[in-house]
Amino acid sequence: MNMSNDKKPERRPGQKKDWKKDQGSRGGKPRGQFRKDYPRRAPRPPVEGRANLWGTHAVSEAWLNPARQIAALYITDVMLKNFEPTLAQGKELKRPSPKIMDRKDMDRMLGEGVVHQGIAIDAKPLDEVFVQDFIARAANLDHALLLMLDQVTDPHNAGAILRSASAFGAAGVIMQRRHSPELTGVLAKTASGAIEHVPVAYEINLSDTLDYLKNKGFYAIGLDERGETAIGAIKKGGKTVLVLGAEGKGLRPKVAEHCDTLARLPTQGPINSLNVSNAAAVALYALSK
Amino acid sequence: MNMSNDKKPERRPGQKKDWKKDQGSRGGKPRGQFRKDYPRRAPRPPVEGRANLWGTHAVSEAWLNPARQIAALYITDVMLKNFEPTLAQGKELKRPSPKIMDRKDMDRMLGEGVVHQGIAIDAKPLDEVFVQDFIARAANLDHALLLMLDQVTDPHNAGAILRSASAFGAAGVIMQRRHSPELTGVLAKTASGAIEHVPVAYEINLSDTLDYLKNKGFYAIGLDERGETAIGAIKKGGKTVLVLGAEGKGLRPKVAEHCDTLARLPTQGPINSLNVSNAAAVALYALSK
Repeated sequence: MNMSNDKKPERRPGQKKDWKKDQGSRGGKPRGQFRKDYPRRAPRPPVEGRANLWGTHAVSEAWLNPARQIAALYITDVMLKNFEPTLAQGKELKRPSPKIMDRKDMDRMLGEGVVHQGIAIDAKPLDEVFVQDFIARAANLDHALLLMLDQVTDPHNAGAILRSASAFGAAGVIMQRRHSPELTGVLAKTASGAIEHVPVAYEINLSDTLDYLKNKGFYAIGLDERGETAIGAIKKGGKTVLVLGAEGKGLRPKVAEHCDTLARLPTQGPINSLNVSNAAAVALYALSK
Repeated sequence: MNMSNDKKPERRPGQKKDWKKDQGSRGGKPRGQFRKDYPRRAPRPPVEGRANLWGTHAVSEAWLNPARQIAALYITDVMLKNFEPTLAQGKELKRPSPKIMDRKDMDRMLGEGVVHQGIAIDAKPLDEVFVQDFIARAANLDHALLLMLDQVTDPHNAGAILRSASAFGAAGVIMQRRHSPELTGVLAKTASGAIEHVPVAYEINLSDTLDYLKNKGFYAIGLDERGETAIGAIKKGGKTVLVLGAEGKGLRPKVAEHCDTLARLPTQGPINSLNVSNAAAVALYALSK
């Protein structure tokens, strides 16, 4: 120990220490490198809080939805300024006070890679909706378009589809109870607030649901590459349920069987299928009034 | 030390050890916790190899594209069986032999979170294409639809748009040189092989390019929520360039000014804008013959 201290060479200012020659009392490993490989600080404890909706559009629309109960709002200092008009607009509703949170703490609360934009809420699920509700509401209408998703599991796709369904005035969306993503998180963010406006009903058996809807006067159109009808040839209006299958697999044969007709998009060339949310948008456009 | 050993209390079965009271000879830190916090194994070295296209569709279409040069194919054992028909189909082309690779090594080569499906290639970029090529090819045609993307930077969106452009028979896509994602990786995966079929030209100034196209007989339609014309009211056919702005921001004012008309989608309700790739698909459908 004394030896190494005595022999320590003089360093010019700015010169890097030669760790190989000058090893400290820790034996072999230079201090700096040791620190890098084995951080001494314990990982920071998780941030307390629970949020299931995030992103400006998703949160704003939920905040102003009287049917939505909200337990907590987490927000960064910066975002709070942008959110103030919405806070003012929603002051009649029973809403919690904002909890100011660091961006980094929010990253840790929501997990890595979540694009929260500095705003997140803990929202209770909306009241459950049923296909019977859709039928009741459509009873006195000339035109009602429902959308049924057969195992569309990717939350980005399902979210974009809900957004398009809302924009094209769909009366409701039906998903399968077992194979569907929840109406929170990435799906809600991608839906950009649409989950507050388009009611979603979960059903156990989609084939049975189709039969039930057909009995109540709905015309069932399955979207399928091999469909016999071009979507543009289908008369708009009336009561319609549009059925979409999962990306890649398409409609399951049993579900396709229960449709009144199978319609195709007028695609061409070697890449003749669209991303499922793109296909949904086109079909909704083609069928909406 | 002796003292703490002598006073060690008896533990009931199932009772957790109280580490604070019972510290081992390492001084302070209990062994198990030490191991967990400070992993002793060095991280595995990176896998050699360089790949820029992955996923079954993206790779298959590139593999069979004679205009595409490929330097290496990395594939898992399992995927090799699925890929054999494509290998047979492409045997006339000068293609490298497959390098079999573990799924885990492929994960490490491509980085975390990459959905490679067990297949990846090192592909050279395709020959550059110019707007002049689009004009030359359209010279003798009654109908040609070009798509221009004004700062659509998200690779998922750009990829889905290229896929739709291919499916609806667009003659080409124009992007801004500075603000566009490359035609590799996530974009190529999302495009599902469409980058092998739809030529993409990069231009420095989109307003100038629009003027140039208009001089050559193209009609420029900007997609904009505030557009005066409904997209469905625009006559199909002829030579058209459809211009799309970025998600959220929309068309830049200068680019919008250079369009012959601004068209809107017939959306309604509180969520009246679509995801940009969904909007592109609808507009392409509405304008394609």
